[in-house]
Amino acid sequence: MTTIQNRQILLAKRPAGMPTEENFSFVETAVPKLQAGQLLVNTLYLSVDPYMRGRMNDRKTYVPPYALNEMITGGVVGQVEESLAEGFVPGDIVLGNFGWALYNVAAAASVKKVNPDLAPISTALGVLGMPGLTAYYGLLDIGQPKEGETVVVSGAAGAVGMLVGQIAKIKGARAVGIAGSDEKINYLVEELGFDAAVNYKKGDLRQQLKEACPSGVDIYFDNVGGTVSDAVLSLINKGTRIPLCGRISLYNLEQADIGPRIQTQLLINSALMQGFIVSNYAEQAEEGLNQMAQWLKEGKINYTETITEGFDNIPKAFLGLFCGENTGKQLIKIADPAR
Amino acid sequence: MTTIQNRQILLAKRPAGMPTEENFSFVETAVPKLQAGQLLVNTLYLSVDPYMRGRMNDRKTYVPPYALNEMITGGVVGQVEESLAEGFVPGDIVLGNFGWALYNVAAAASVKKVNPDLAPISTALGVLGMPGLTAYYGLLDIGQPKEGETVVVSGAAGAVGMLVGQIAKIKGARAVGIAGSDEKINYLVEELGFDAAVNYKKGDLRQQLKEACPSGVDIYFDNVGGTVSDAVLSLINKGTRIPLCGRISLYNLEQADIGPRIQTQLLINSALMQGFIVSNYAEQAEEGLNQMAQWLKEGKINYTETITEGFDNIPKAFLGLFCGENTGKQLIKIADPAR
Repeated sequence: MTTIQNRQILLAKRPAGMPTEENFSFVETAVPKLQAGQLLVNTLYLSVDPYMRGRMNDRKTYVPPYALNEMITGGVVGQVEESLAEGFVPGDIVLGNFGWALYNVAAAASVKKVNPDLAPISTALGVLGMPGLTAYYGLLDIGQPKEGETVVVSGAAGAVGMLVGQIAKIKGARAVGIAGSDEKINYLVEELGFDAAVNYKKGDLRQQLKEACPSGVDIYFDNVGGTVSDAVLSLINKGTRIPLCGRISLYNLEQADIGPRIQTQLLINSALMQGFIVSNYAEQAEEGLNQMAQWLKEGKINYTETITEGFDNIPKAFLGLFCGENTGKQLIKIADPAR
Repeated sequence: MTTIQNRQILLAKRPAGMPTEENFSFVETAVPKLQAGQLLVNTLYLSVDPYMRGRMNDRKTYVPPYALNEMITGGVVGQVEESLAEGFVPGDIVLGNFGWALYNVAAAASVKKVNPDLAPISTALGVLGMPGLTAYYGLLDIGQPKEGETVVVSGAAGAVGMLVGQIAKIKGARAVGIAGSDEKINYLVEELGFDAAVNYKKGDLRQQLKEACPSGVDIYFDNVGGTVSDAVLSLINKGTRIPLCGRISLYNLEQADIGPRIQTQLLINSALMQGFIVSNYAEQAEEGLNQMAQWLKEGKINYTETITEGFDNIPKAFLGLFCGENTGKQLIKIADPAR
C-alpha cells in the first residue's frame, strides 16, 4: 500500500479573547503504518463544540487544555479504511474522539461503532451523541422537570438547547427558549413545539421572559451565562433547579466575569444550581441514548444540523459558534461514506 | 386578677443599611384577657437572629417582612403564667415564635413544650433549636460530608457555624472555620476541635485558606457571602457541595451585591450550590433534634452562648450580630424561671 497523505489542523497559538484563523495551522503529514489493534479511520463528519474554546487556553477547566502545535481533537464520525483489530472491517462507521484530520489512526478500543440503519450517521455527533446526552441528563437528572413546570433554556437553538426544550415538553413541562434571532425563535416555536421563545437581542429580555413565563421559572438550563442568565435568575421560583451546562457568552471574555452575585437569589428561593459535564453520566450513557433513539423514532424529538462542507472550513465553522451562526448541531462534512 | 403591664418592641422605621436604635420603639401596653385555648407566657430567653434583618425590609425574602409599627417577632423561651388550654399548666416551659415583649398571649397549638431536664432551657433557641437544625440538615442533607473530606464553614463562631464544624468532625471530615477575631479562631480550634480556623480580617484570606485546606474544599457551608465566600469558592474541588445558609456580610448592604459570577467555577467543577431554610426540614425536625440531643449528652457537641441581660438591650444585642460581637448563640435573658 502506498503512503497516504494526511492533512491535520494544529493549535498554532493560544487565543486571547475571540480566536481567529491565525490560531490554527494546517499541516500535511503521512499516515503512519498501522499497528496491531489499530484502525485507519477516514473522517466523514467532524464536530465543533463550544467547550473546545476552553481547551485552547493554557488552563485546566474540566478537560485538559490542547497542547500547542498539536492536533486539535474532538468528536468525529468516520469510516474504517483499514483494520488491524478484531471486530472491525473496512466500511464500518465509527465514532471517536479524534484529531481534526482527514485520517486518524485510532486504537480500536477507543472507538464506538455507529449503526447506520438506526439514524443518519451524523446524529452520533448530535441528538444521539454528546449533545443529546448532555440535554438528557442535565435536564432529567439535575432539572427533574415535573408536569406543568416552566423550563427556560438559553442557547435554545443550539445542539443541546433545542433538545432540552423538546424533552421538557415530553415530560409535560412548558418550554421557553432564549435565542439570538427571530428566525431561530420562530424555528423553536413553529418547528420544535416550544411554548414560547424570546430573542435576547431585541428589547428588554427580563420583561419578555416575564411575559413568556407567567408562573415564573422552575428550571433554568443554562448554556450561555452572563447577562442573559442574570435576567432569567431574577425570575426563579421557590425550589428552582439550575443545571449549568455552558457559558458560551463568556468563553472569549478577556476581563473577569463580574455581575450580580447569585447566592442571595438562590438562598431566598431554596434553589439549586449544579454544574455538570456529560462524562459524569458515562456509566448511564447507553440508557440515555436508547431513550433518545426511541423518541427520535417516534417523532417526539426533531432536530436540525448546520453542515459546513470541506476540511478547510473547520476553523471558520468553529468560530461561527460564538457568533450564533449555527442552528442546531454544527458539523463539518468532509466526505460521504464509501459504500 | 389585676391587669398586667406589658412592654413590647415595635419596628418603628424600616432601616436603610445598618439599623440603629431609632428603628425600634418601646411601648407599654396592657396584656389582653386570655381566651379559651390560649396561654399567657412570660418571656425568659429571647433570640435575636441575623435573618431578622431581612424581615425589616419591605420586601419578601423567604419569610414575609415585619409590619411597620407592629411587634418584632422571633424565637422565645418562656414560662406559662396562666393557661386556658388543656395540657398546659402554669410553670411549663415553652418555645414559640413570639413578639419581643415581656409577655405574650399565644395559642397553645402554636407553642412547643421544652423539657428542662434534657438540657438548659436556653438551648431550645440554639443547639437544640433552629440553629441546631439549620446546621444539621444544611450540612448533612445538602453537604453530605464523607470521611476525610474538607468542610469549610464561614461565620464559624456563630450559632450555626460552630455546630457545622463539630458535626463535620463527627462524620469524620476535616473542619476548617472562618471567623473575625483571633479569640474566635482559638476558641474553634482549642475548645471545639476544629482542625484549623482562619481570621478573615487578617492578611490574605485565600492564602490562609489554601494553607488550611491542602486538599482543597469539598463542602463550603456559607453563612456570610461576599468576598469571604469568593475566596473559598476559588478553592473548591470537583464535586464540591455548597449549602447556602446565610449572607450576613450583605444584609445591611445599600448597593447591589456585585462580584465575580460563580457559575463558571461551579460548572468546571461539577459543583452543587443549594439555598435552604430550616423550615424546608420541618417534617424531619424531631429526628434532627433527637440526634443533636444525643450528641450533646455524649459530649460530642459543645456550644457557647453570648447572653445579654435585660429587655432594654434587645436592639443592641441584635445590632451586635452584624459586628461580630457574639460568639455562639446570641440570647437576651429577660427573667429566670419562677420555679
